[in-house]
Amino acid sequence: MHVSLPDGKQLELPQGATALDAAQAIGPRLAQDALAATANGVLTDLQTPLPDGAEISLITKKNPGQAQSVFRHSLGHAMSQAVGEYYERKGYPREAVKRGVGPSIENGFYQDFDLPEPLSEEELPEIEKIMREIIGRGLDITRSEVSKAQALEQFGFDPYKVELISELPDDQPITFYTQGDYVDLCRGPHFPNTGKLPTAFKLTSTSGAYWRGNEKNPILQRVYGVAFASQKELDEYLERLEEAKRRDHRKLGRELELFTIDPLVGKGLPLWLPNGTILREELAAFLKEQQFQRGYQGVITPNIGNLELYKTSGHYQNYSDSNFSPITVDDEQYMLKPMNCPHHVRIYDSKPRSYRDLPVRLAEFGTVYRYEQSGELNGLTRVRGFTQDDAHIFCRPDQLKKEFLDVLDLTVLVLRTFGMNDVRFRVGTRDPEDDKYVGDAANWQLAEDQIIQAVEEVGLPYSIEPGDAAFYGPKLDFVVKDVLGREWQLGTIQVDYNLPERFDISYVGEDGQDHRPVMIHRAPFGSLERFVGILIEHYAGDFPLWLAPRQIAIVPIADRHNAYAEELRAELHAAGLRAEVDDSSNRMQAKVRNAELSKIPMILVVGDKEQEARQVSTRERWPDGHRERKGVPFDELKTELLERYKSRS
Amino acid sequence: MHVSLPDGKQLELPQGATALDAAQAIGPRLAQDALAATANGVLTDLQTPLPDGAEISLITKKNPGQAQSVFRHSLGHAMSQAVGEYYERKGYPREAVKRGVGPSIENGFYQDFDLPEPLSEEELPEIEKIMREIIGRGLDITRSEVSKAQALEQFGFDPYKVELISELPDDQPITFYTQGDYVDLCRGPHFPNTGKLPTAFKLTSTSGAYWRGNEKNPILQRVYGVAFASQKELDEYLERLEEAKRRDHRKLGRELELFTIDPLVGKGLPLWLPNGTILREELAAFLKEQQFQRGYQGVITPNIGNLELYKTSGHYQNYSDSNFSPITVDDEQYMLKPMNCPHHVRIYDSKPRSYRDLPVRLAEFGTVYRYEQSGELNGLTRVRGFTQDDAHIFCRPDQLKKEFLDVLDLTVLVLRTFGMNDVRFRVGTRDPEDDKYVGDAANWQLAEDQIIQAVEEVGLPYSIEPGDAAFYGPKLDFVVKDVLGREWQLGTIQVDYNLPERFDISYVGEDGQDHRPVMIHRAPFGSLERFVGILIEHYAGDFPLWLAPRQIAIVPIADRHNAYAEELRAELHAAGLRAEVDDSSNRMQAKVRNAELSKIPMILVVGDKEQEARQVSTRERWPDGHRERKGVPFDELKTELLERYKSRS
Repeated sequence: MHVSLPDGKQLELPQGATALDAAQAIGPRLAQDALAATANGVLTDLQTPLPDGAEISLITKKNPGQAQSVFRHSLGHAMSQAVGEYYERKGYPREAVKRGVGPSIENGFYQDFDLPEPLSEEELPEIEKIMREIIGRGLDITRSEVSKAQALEQFGFDPYKVELISELPDDQPITFYTQGDYVDLCRGPHFPNTGKLPTAFKLTSTSGAYWRGNEKNPILQRVYGVAFASQKELDEYLERLEEAKRRDHRKLGRELELFTIDPLVGKGLPLWLPNGTILREELAAFLKEQQFQRGYQGVITPNIGNLELYKTSGHYQNYSDSNFSPITVDDEQYMLKPMNCPHHVRIYDSKPRSYRDLPVRLAEFGTVYRYEQSGELNGLTRVRGFTQDDAHIFCRPDQLKKEFLDVLDLTVLVLRTFGMNDVRFRVGTRDPEDDKYVGDAANWQLAEDQIIQAVEEVGLPYSIEPGDAAFYGPKLDFVVKDVLGREWQLGTIQVDYNLPERFDISYVGEDGQDHRPVMIHRAPFGSLERFVGILIEHYAGDFPLWLAPRQIAIVPIADRHNAYAEELRAELHAAGLRAEVDDSSNRMQAKVRNAELSKIPMILVVGDKEQEARQVSTRERWPDGHRERKGVPFDELKTELLERYKSRS
Repeated sequence: MHVSLPDGKQLELPQGATALDAAQAIGPRLAQDALAATANGVLTDLQTPLPDGAEISLITKKNPGQAQSVFRHSLGHAMSQAVGEYYERKGYPREAVKRGVGPSIENGFYQDFDLPEPLSEEELPEIEKIMREIIGRGLDITRSEVSKAQALEQFGFDPYKVELISELPDDQPITFYTQGDYVDLCRGPHFPNTGKLPTAFKLTSTSGAYWRGNEKNPILQRVYGVAFASQKELDEYLERLEEAKRRDHRKLGRELELFTIDPLVGKGLPLWLPNGTILREELAAFLKEQQFQRGYQGVITPNIGNLELYKTSGHYQNYSDSNFSPITVDDEQYMLKPMNCPHHVRIYDSKPRSYRDLPVRLAEFGTVYRYEQSGELNGLTRVRGFTQDDAHIFCRPDQLKKEFLDVLDLTVLVLRTFGMNDVRFRVGTRDPEDDKYVGDAANWQLAEDQIIQAVEEVGLPYSIEPGDAAFYGPKLDFVVKDVLGREWQLGTIQVDYNLPERFDISYVGEDGQDHRPVMIHRAPFGSLERFVGILIEHYAGDFPLWLAPRQIAIVPIADRHNAYAEELRAELHAAGLRAEVDDSSNRMQAKVRNAELSKIPMILVVGDKEQEARQVSTRERWPDGHRERKGVPFDELKTELLERYKSRS
């Protein structure tokens, strides 16, 4: 057989040759350094037979990062072996530890165990120590093929493995990987020797996981680890993890009293506390102002609708998994509104429209309800009820590009307002091979062309993703990278030829004939819940003045300054600013610290001097630290704060 | 037997004597003038035997208005007789007209008929003519008592009467009233003679009505009439009726494009069109500003809740008629939110509260859903989904009066802002005989005393209605009289001892012990739907500038002024005002008229002179007419308009 190398060279090798054979054919030093390989672009290990004619590339200790998923998987085996030894050292027989699956995952690996007694997170460093011993032993990791019967015999003691093996085809060999006295049923690939595994790993946590993800099955204990090719990468990763924990919107949401989720009210149904409500209403007010300036018209529609509405729109049939169960009213059936579009289409259709009336841009902060499995729910970012900053634009085909550009412009403005400057677009177009798309092919082509032209004009990075369009029209997603390098899909813009057709809506053209309008669905925030969740993490709770639920803390130095502090508070409040006085018995420094911990961006300290001159001293959050000012005339400061608030700077 | 007269005099009369006998005993002139009487305060006619010892008072032609319900009922008989004669004149046999019930009602009367062919509203003047003939005939209206058998024989041809007679007790006489050849089964009372009936009546409409209100029964035709003692009263009433029709919020809601109700979306579920949405959001913004100044905190809660929440609150059990059917989610049941209170109680309870934190005032424009029978639904004033301007105040008992006063103050301010100056309060207190009330009697007394003190301090008219309290606490309703003299119950304030108990909420008092807070429910508007419905009728659609969905119409005199008009529009719009240009080909006068018909309060006319000097000429709605100004500098006008908008003047 032949394989070809990256430089185009061909190697002739015996049938069944492995990547190690290929490396040896090139030179013993390479064979020594090789860790894994790719064959036709897919990661493989040194022991697995190569397909004839494969293009191969060897991965060596110079660039182990190219084989991340391989060494993560192998470290998973090392961890699994270490846990076995740990329980053996505790006096349990080897068979007492049974194992579920153990794949590599993003950033690391996990392994599920059925253990004779639970492993606490405090014990994880012990396991890590044994893992390092196993690496130190330099054990060969060898691949072998066995029959199903042999496999069943080997793992007779372990009901999980038996279940997995029983489901494998009878006529194909099953692969084992063995290192020392540890054997696992595994498809691989793996590193050739435990001694070659990186030591930049850490076991991070344990959790319960149903066997095969089914809640009717027993719960296994899952142990998670992370691993990188170098200690530097691991350290950076752990730091990002710490930072992500610090920014976790569920944690900050609780600490800053932004929202709460109460099982008695319902899973996945956040209650917006006063502070969170301010945040949400500031966001809505900001977008409403923009929409007013751009000629949108507000509408308000109910949270339920007749089932016939959703049958007409197709939501009932097409999204049945996320629909809540129907509500019977007299002889009719209703449903919680999963989307605002059908309601807006009916509003469009509530009077005759002429080509001169278009575009009609109907906007609503519409609260919709979609069923999510309870296991999928997560804080504000995965909920069962949420409020979309929704709008539907009904336009003539010749207006599509202009409308699309305006929506792009609005969305980029929105994101920039929050300092989200790392934005890219994903344009979802038709897959020309697929025939699932509704609507006229010429219209599709026109729409795709106009969208791409519009995106080009905006000048931000974009990719075209053929086949990513919805069945009813092309779409555009916004992807934003946050300070932790995580990508979030935020707003979306979708062109829709389907709903206008299904609801048979029209406008009278210049020719006096009925024409079908095009619909654009758009939501720059996506949903207020999700956007606030992301914003909390983006700002780590340190919201800019205009968004901060608690804007101004006034700190009287002594009790005798309380009245002056209260006078200032009342004035700021009357001007529409959110100010509070800390008249507790704490010392001034403690009050300032408390205000900072509460993430209040502006602190006014008032003592004798300030009171006498109607001044304040300020301490405020400032890029990379704090800014302090002494003896600022209060009226000047009030004007400054109002200006900063209104301008959302 | 004896009866006593209003002046205290006693009359001795034979057993079974009637009011006519009493009148005759006083004098023949009075017997001649008498129309009806009251016996022990209850209206009776001249022919019905008086109870022994009754205090009686005679009603004569000098004050027929005191017997309104009597002559309305008698006019109903005259109408019924006239309809019979009308069909006889058409050639139908007398038995072809069958009759359901025919009572007197507010302002008039109606009679249900089963007719051989339907009566159109165009035929009503014919019926009125025959009624006047019957009055002209001066027929005695005579009361007689018959047995059940006689009654059944008399009305054998009429299945409706037969059904009614069959249900009467066997052993009591049945009364007939007869005038000429018209006989009706009737309890009375009636005037003594058709010639004494007032002629100030009018037949207004017909409608279908199920026999006995049951939709399984046949539909009868109901003919309505109105009647008053004098033509002046009738004219005034008809004028008010015309005015009410002109102001009907359903009619204006359609014409001004404020809302629509779409059966495909759902009955009783208004869709707020762009113009109505502006109105609603202006109202909400106004109240939110007030609430911010008064220390309310906004919250937002979902439109559904776990059934357990409503079982805990008692809403599930106590208001089952108005609950929508449950929604099953996994192994839980949810329900559309009928009230916001349980959600707010859970927010109160989401963290520990100290006596220093109280009062906590949680406010939400919360959309709730309550089932109403489809026949009860009416425009915006009777709906199945509505948004309350809801708030719940959690306070210490010693704070109740102050909080109550603040809510009263806020509500009166709200109503006065809309020129609703004719306000009275109804204070609902316990019925001391009833034991349905929850909570401590001393607390109740305290609350009732504090509410009455608060109401006294406000100084507006009020009444105390014992027994009108809710079972969970005393309450106060606002009743407003509109320009048509109709009374509307608007907002309500309720004290609640029940929910704090049921949810077991508390605060830590100064003594370090747990105490139970008192809750106040309040909603100055009541609901946005109902309030907007009432506002539309109150203003007849002529909203003040700040509320008007379309504030400013700019009318270019000729096409060459369109660009200038558009420039002004853009400037006003950028400042947040709602302005539009009429660049149609209509003449200037027609454009101004159209703007006025669209109820746009401010019209700017621009021609050569205005354009040259950057001025406008204005024509605006003004108390009792219009105000016109020429050559107003545009920048001045803009400032003035903004000022009027922001100050809601």
